[in-house]
Amino acid sequence: MGINRFFQFFLPKEPKFLNLLTGQVDDIVKASDLLIAFLQTPAHEQRKALYAEIKQVEMHCDRLTTQILDELNNTFITPFDREDIHELAAQLDDVLDLINGSAKRVVLYQPKVLTTSMVELAEYVRQSAECLQIAVAELDKVKKNPSVVKQQVRRMHEIENLADDVYEHYIMSLFENEKDAIELFKHMEIMQMLENATDKAYRVTDVLKTIIVKYA
Amino acid sequence: MGINRFFQFFLPKEPKFLNLLTGQVDDIVKASDLLIAFLQTPAHEQRKALYAEIKQVEMHCDRLTTQILDELNNTFITPFDREDIHELAAQLDDVLDLINGSAKRVVLYQPKVLTTSMVELAEYVRQSAECLQIAVAELDKVKKNPSVVKQQVRRMHEIENLADDVYEHYIMSLFENEKDAIELFKHMEIMQMLENATDKAYRVTDVLKTIIVKYA
Amino acid sequence: MGINRFFQFFLPKEPKFLNLLTGQVDDIVKASDLLIAFLQTPAHEQRKALYAEIKQVEMHCDRLTTQILDELNNTFITPFDREDIHELAAQLDDVLDLINGSAKRVVLYQPKVLTTSMVELAEYVRQSAECLQIAVAELDKVKKNPSVVKQQVRRMHEIENLADDVYEHYIMSLFENEKDAIELFKHMEIMQMLENATDKAYRVTDVLKTIIVKYA
Repeated sequence: MGINRFFQFFLPKEPKFLNLLTGQVDDIVKASDLLIAFLQTPAHEQRKALYAEIKQVEMHCDRLTTQILDELNNTFITPFDREDIHELAAQLDDVLDLINGSAKRVVLYQPKVLTTSMVELAEYVRQSAECLQIAVAELDKVKKNPSVVKQQVRRMHEIENLADDVYEHYIMSLFENEKDAIELFKHMEIMQMLENATDKAYRVTDVLKTIIVKYA
Repeated sequence: MGINRFFQFFLPKEPKFLNLLTGQVDDIVKASDLLIAFLQTPAHEQRKALYAEIKQVEMHCDRLTTQILDELNNTFITPFDREDIHELAAQLDDVLDLINGSAKRVVLYQPKVLTTSMVELAEYVRQSAECLQIAVAELDKVKKNPSVVKQQVRRMHEIENLADDVYEHYIMSLFENEKDAIELFKHMEIMQMLENATDKAYRVTDVLKTIIVKYA
Repeated sequence: MGINRFFQFFLPKEPKFLNLLTGQVDDIVKASDLLIAFLQTPAHEQRKALYAEIKQVEMHCDRLTTQILDELNNTFITPFDREDIHELAAQLDDVLDLINGSAKRVVLYQPKVLTTSMVELAEYVRQSAECLQIAVAELDKVKKNPSVVKQQVRRMHEIENLADDVYEHYIMSLFENEKDAIELFKHMEIMQMLENATDKAYRVTDVLKTIIVKYA
């Protein structure tokens, strides 16, 4: 370990962290695509097959997260502060957990209908995932030019507001129109987790903003 | 690091962090006053106007929080450990998010009645907010004399216990008496978020206790 | 403080942290035993007595957690990185909060029946608690031989998967069979918190894995 660490002084900062983070955001894009398809599939059995695919992506992302955390503990020189990479990896992992959790609730609760509002929220998750993909691809240039990352942060803020509107309108009309308490309850729980997914994607911008302030 | 510490002896510690934290607790007091008024307002439209005011305060506090985190990343010398100021600012922001979230649930769910227990919980949030105001105003004196901050921590512990009692009695009587599942569900969700707000205010004492142990 | 810190260089690393962490895991084992008994007790009054005992254990663990955090702020040399001990203590405390919270929900909601699935989840919490007990007892040897801790991490992963299965099957059958919305709601909320307890116990393995990677 000693010699290893010694030589790391002379090595360029390795791109492995950015590769692993890119792997995470690619997984989030994949999973949100699957979630949109899942929520547009009326047949329960076909939905279960798509949920199994989402689960696979989520497990893949888990392994990437573990790898990032292990590397952080074993690497002397990191491209950004250790705690920022840690936070970024953990937050991205949380986004995928919430995508997976949303699909899981649909599989478990089997609501009588799925609504277009659910699909809309999933589409906002997908749009945020794209912003994250662009932002992570720019991280190695953020010190020279933070404008692309800043733009994605702003875009994600707009997406979050749009997602909030969809959520709020849906919940209000649900309480006005749905008289079956159990169905209402299912829809609430599913929509809350989808809204958490959009919110958590937006939360990732906190780390991005920290990185911009520190390094750019 | 050595030189860093050396110079710290001679520079005055800037009061900006305490000013910003004071801004946050002032916002929490304002928002909890509005929440009490909101929960005592029977007409939905008037409640919506008060909710809009709470939302404004919440957005103001968001900006203060962002400012604190930015300053932390740009300031060489901080009056307390960086991570403690970060934690304190983040926790205070969370308290206001939960006050706002409680009002939002009432607006979205429109329960048939609002109860005195809801107002009581909001009043406990208000009392905790006052303790936080006193404690934050004392932070610059905590190294010399931590007794005022300690007293507020104890007071907030008592408030948390009183709030727990209100919450528990209310939930028990709700399940005994409310036969409309949808109304019961609305009240549960609203009370849970109000209880979270009191609990989160109490959680701020963790950071205060850390500061006392480290510096006093 | 200066002289104090100077002398600490020459003192052996104190075993106090391991003793306090051991106290925490012992409390988790005690509380999960009580939770199993609680969930098997049909009479409400007797359950309340057992809940009072769980609450006592939870308060004891709270005091241990406070003590660990205070010691961390006052001790110069710690057996592991400060933030890892902090994280471990906080996570263990969370496990006990969720055990206590699960029992509290049963006391407050008074569901008409308690199910074997609830007991099964509590038994998985108990099994994870035992793994934690073994792992914490090995922490002082982890640098020389991490195999026992690694084994417990694997075992807890298996337990988490088994607990997930119980939870998922139960929720699916609940939505198929329970037509009383309020009872369904009670069972959902209780099972969710029990599942959170098993999940949180599993989350502790994240810190254990970090410690293995850093020191072993």
